[in-house]
Amino acid sequence: MKLVTFQYEDKRSIGAYIDGDRVIDLHESYKQMLRTEGKTRIEEKAQAYVPSTMEDFLRGGEDSMEAARGVVDYVLKNAGGTVYERKQVKLLAPLHQPEKIICVGHNYREHILEMGREIPEYPVVFAKFANTIIGPEDDIPFYPISEQLDYEAEFVFVVGKEAKNVKEEDALDYVAGYSIANDVTYRDIQRRTLEWLQGKSVDGSAPIGPWIVTSDELQDPSGLAVTLKVNGEVRQQTNTENLVFTVPKLVAFLSNLMTLKPGDIILTGTPGGVGVAMDPPRFLKEGDVVTIDIDRVGTLENKVSTIKE
Amino acid sequence: MKLVTFQYEDKRSIGAYIDGDRVIDLHESYKQMLRTEGKTRIEEKAQAYVPSTMEDFLRGGEDSMEAARGVVDYVLKNAGGTVYERKQVKLLAPLHQPEKIICVGHNYREHILEMGREIPEYPVVFAKFANTIIGPEDDIPFYPISEQLDYEAEFVFVVGKEAKNVKEEDALDYVAGYSIANDVTYRDIQRRTLEWLQGKSVDGSAPIGPWIVTSDELQDPSGLAVTLKVNGEVRQQTNTENLVFTVPKLVAFLSNLMTLKPGDIILTGTPGGVGVAMDPPRFLKEGDVVTIDIDRVGTLENKVSTIKE
Repeated sequence: MKLVTFQYEDKRSIGAYIDGDRVIDLHESYKQMLRTEGKTRIEEKAQAYVPSTMEDFLRGGEDSMEAARGVVDYVLKNAGGTVYERKQVKLLAPLHQPEKIICVGHNYREHILEMGREIPEYPVVFAKFANTIIGPEDDIPFYPISEQLDYEAEFVFVVGKEAKNVKEEDALDYVAGYSIANDVTYRDIQRRTLEWLQGKSVDGSAPIGPWIVTSDELQDPSGLAVTLKVNGEVRQQTNTENLVFTVPKLVAFLSNLMTLKPGDIILTGTPGGVGVAMDPPRFLKEGDVVTIDIDRVGTLENKVSTIKE
Repeated sequence: MKLVTFQYEDKRSIGAYIDGDRVIDLHESYKQMLRTEGKTRIEEKAQAYVPSTMEDFLRGGEDSMEAARGVVDYVLKNAGGTVYERKQVKLLAPLHQPEKIICVGHNYREHILEMGREIPEYPVVFAKFANTIIGPEDDIPFYPISEQLDYEAEFVFVVGKEAKNVKEEDALDYVAGYSIANDVTYRDIQRRTLEWLQGKSVDGSAPIGPWIVTSDELQDPSGLAVTLKVNGEVRQQTNTENLVFTVPKLVAFLSNLMTLKPGDIILTGTPGGVGVAMDPPRFLKEGDVVTIDIDRVGTLENKVSTIKE
């Protein structure tokens, strides 16, 4: 499944994106399915199995995933349920209140080697907060606090089950699915001090989406081409097979330090080709369109929009 | 007021700590006060003004603070309300789900100078996540992932009002109150890479409390003595007058980068005297008791307890 969070008129819900142009409202359609089946206490069951926020849904684990797959089958077989055309809804970021957004630095092998660095023994990890999250149809706000707005294409995984001390070989069982993020960075602010957080935590600096491709659909997160373009010009290009710390390694490493929780978002790192590394550096400006494509996941495209203050 | 989050039997609520030995259940007592006043829709009004979680309460801003002050008056004047002896309840961390926990590094002037460093132009900021929060009566879990468990005494402020581009002179209006934290750090893990997050994000590595002293009671956060002891031996000692980036400066700086939200927790930095800087280094071990005293705020004391895995 491709799980989305969407808005239709004033209402937010979670959905499944199907056929390349339709969105099933999972929460409403689940209730209709139960009604058709003659069930009782419909609202309570929907809250328990297919609630209307992605955070609550992911906390439901495999029970909720199974219920959602049931809804999709029901809609496809019966032409029932609440289904919108893609254009009728606004796709939002899949998640809005993760406990953690963990980013990995220096994680693409070819880029580390071309920079003349050694393959690191431990991943470099840093944080973003939930205030940075925006959706696939939002503009990237460019605040007048810096002139060095930069992009970073990121392959993302989302935690699906509480994870503590998980072994690499079991790690993928703890992944709900995969998505795309742009780790938008105010480069000069990032580099003011050794700790990168201040250049990474500006409001709206984490476009994420357009959906979560569930790990039953995308079972192997390696071997996926990643491309980032600015106004159509390719700037970053890599493949997840080049990740030094793969998704299983990261789940094992991070869950040895901390308890990962359903809905936690992990940005696995960016390859070479960021604007600051070009000669001369080329930063983002008003109106630029940043497009990230990842095989079998999808496309995340956002325009840069200057904020006047 | 000293605002606490507490547990009595199976129930969590927020309270006001009074007379050095009693806790008023603010949520329940507010309902009783409204009942006494002959009001209707008591539950709804309590949810709106004095809800039972600190996060929701702080989102209520000055309206909620005023209602809470009214409850304390009511209890003291009428000997009504739900009031517990200190020993009947467990004090928990005041907050459990902040959007952000922002920590400031290298922020005590005397320590920077004694290290031969220059006073920095910008604060160093880094993150912890909500999984690190434990309360004033919890033990600090010592996971067998390192032998270098270290302490850092921190004067804390809690955001009380959404803050974006706030000026230094208005900054204290955005502070709900003050507290104490121990920025527990796995020192070798912190230093594996340039980014400190991995040594700062282990479960339970942010004891916080015992309460939030509201900013109407503690109007000036400068000039407060800060002392940290391990098993009664003084290890860190400073005064908030030595902060390079004061509370108003931090509110202005951070709110220029990001929107601060009610319940966000900011750890303002630690002075010299951490275990790793001693000669030879002295790290924490099973059974050690770490006590942090801050003038006019209180005492946060936690014991170190090894986790067997």
